[in-house]
Amino acid sequence: MLNPNIIIEKMMENDAFSKWLNIELVDIKKGYCRLKMHVTKEMTNGFFIAHGGICYSLADSALAFSSNSHGYKAVSVETSISHTRKVMINDILTAETKELSKTNKTALYSIIISNQNNQRVAFFKGTVYISDKTWH
Amino acid sequence: MLNPNIIIEKMMENDAFSKWLNIELVDIKKGYCRLKMHVTKEMTNGFFIAHGGICYSLADSALAFSSNSHGYKAVSVETSISHTRKVMINDILTAETKELSKTNKTALYSIIISNQNNQRVAFFKGTVYISDKTWH
Amino acid sequence: MLNPNIIIEKMMENDAFSKWLNIELVDIKKGYCRLKMHVTKEMTNGFFIAHGGICYSLADSALAFSSNSHGYKAVSVETSISHTRKVMINDILTAETKELSKTNKTALYSIIISNQNNQRVAFFKGTVYISDKTWH
Amino acid sequence: MLNPNIIIEKMMENDAFSKWLNIELVDIKKGYCRLKMHVTKEMTNGFFIAHGGICYSLADSALAFSSNSHGYKAVSVETSISHTRKVMINDILTAETKELSKTNKTALYSIIISNQNNQRVAFFKGTVYISDKTWH
Repeated sequence: MLNPNIIIEKMMENDAFSKWLNIELVDIKKGYCRLKMHVTKEMTNGFFIAHGGICYSLADSALAFSSNSHGYKAVSVETSISHTRKVMINDILTAETKELSKTNKTALYSIIISNQNNQRVAFFKGTVYISDKTWH
Repeated sequence: MLNPNIIIEKMMENDAFSKWLNIELVDIKKGYCRLKMHVTKEMTNGFFIAHGGICYSLADSALAFSSNSHGYKAVSVETSISHTRKVMINDILTAETKELSKTNKTALYSIIISNQNNQRVAFFKGTVYISDKTWH
Repeated sequence: MLNPNIIIEKMMENDAFSKWLNIELVDIKKGYCRLKMHVTKEMTNGFFIAHGGICYSLADSALAFSSNSHGYKAVSVETSISHTRKVMINDILTAETKELSKTNKTALYSIIISNQNNQRVAFFKGTVYISDKTWH
Repeated sequence: MLNPNIIIEKMMENDAFSKWLNIELVDIKKGYCRLKMHVTKEMTNGFFIAHGGICYSLADSALAFSSNSHGYKAVSVETSISHTRKVMINDILTAETKELSKTNKTALYSIIISNQNNQRVAFFKGTVYISDKTWH
């Protein structure tokens, strides 16, 4: 089985949207990842507040990386997010994953997004289906 | 109370991220909107498939427009999305809102996203809190 | 493959909790079912209002029946419900399923619960994992 | 403002369904509660496995108690639950609340349900609307 770093490298290499978002991998291991991103003016709605899609996109990338890190290709089947604090231009966001549950077919992740002041800005929950295709 | 068109115009005018996404307003009335967008290469992950955050962002904009169209400022409190079909580069997506329930404090919306072949690509559900501040 | 009626009969025959809830099967076909129940005093919280768990239980049964009706054993992986109107003692509730999406591994259902006055009291969304074991 | 113990006592005193479920209050403070219940044969589906509605009901009660404990009347607006492990007859379930976020209008709770072996059987997330009516 490929190791998590190589899998995520493959996932990120052509990922134009993650690049546009400035998503940076801080840490990755099986079932876990930590991502970082910098909120730019283009991600905001004109009132200097980030669009809800920005936090979701960051969390969704964290879900993809964490759930694929075990070596099998996994796809999101259901996700939810609560936005609990405004995200502002120039904020530095961190997404951190927790694998709540995993069988060989499905897995459940909680992802918390915090800003540079360690304030929690969004709570994300995601369920994936795990296929039997491996990364190679 | 301002009419829905004027409210949405105000919401969109400085919205940099919606512009980047090419979101276009097709129809708006109280509790309802229809949006359209064109999936570009920058929104994909390098395998020509759109990032999950793209559909979410479109749906989240539809939620904001529909829930603010009544004249009171409303904010998202909880949202969920299921991605049921791959979204490809050059797809034309349409988001359409249905107001499932509304009190003077909270409201619930279902938003379905379809592609140019009328295939449903994502199902979104969103709850908002309605403040007593009006748009003006 | 067994037909939907026989599968649901097997699922219901020893189901003590569904019996306690007075759940009654009104209609069943592949990917669809309609259930009915009568809200009794024991299901309420003393203010004559049904506990949120009552609507959830009815919807969860509808999810199980609809998703197993195709002949393969399916299990719930993620569910959500919004309670939009009070359910009172003596209400007659109907749950009706819509299959939003289905692959051979996962499926997504929307279930709406209405009362005897055709007022919608709850909106439920459920995702299941479909195993390759058949009902027999 | 009434203290949390007295509020929960008032909420539980006529609650027929919580009694039927054998729900027992273990601990309560502002924004937090711990509940316990014993799974009986009547709560199962005949295969000695608890109906999904049982865990949901326990979590929904925990949500109600935690969110009302601050002294203002709060109602659930959106809830979700993932069932991650089978619940069997005679299991002793514990629900524990975490208040993830709170404003004066809405609040978000995570509730984890574990069995007597400290295995997590369900993950619940709930959003409430907080009214300005106080408990008295």
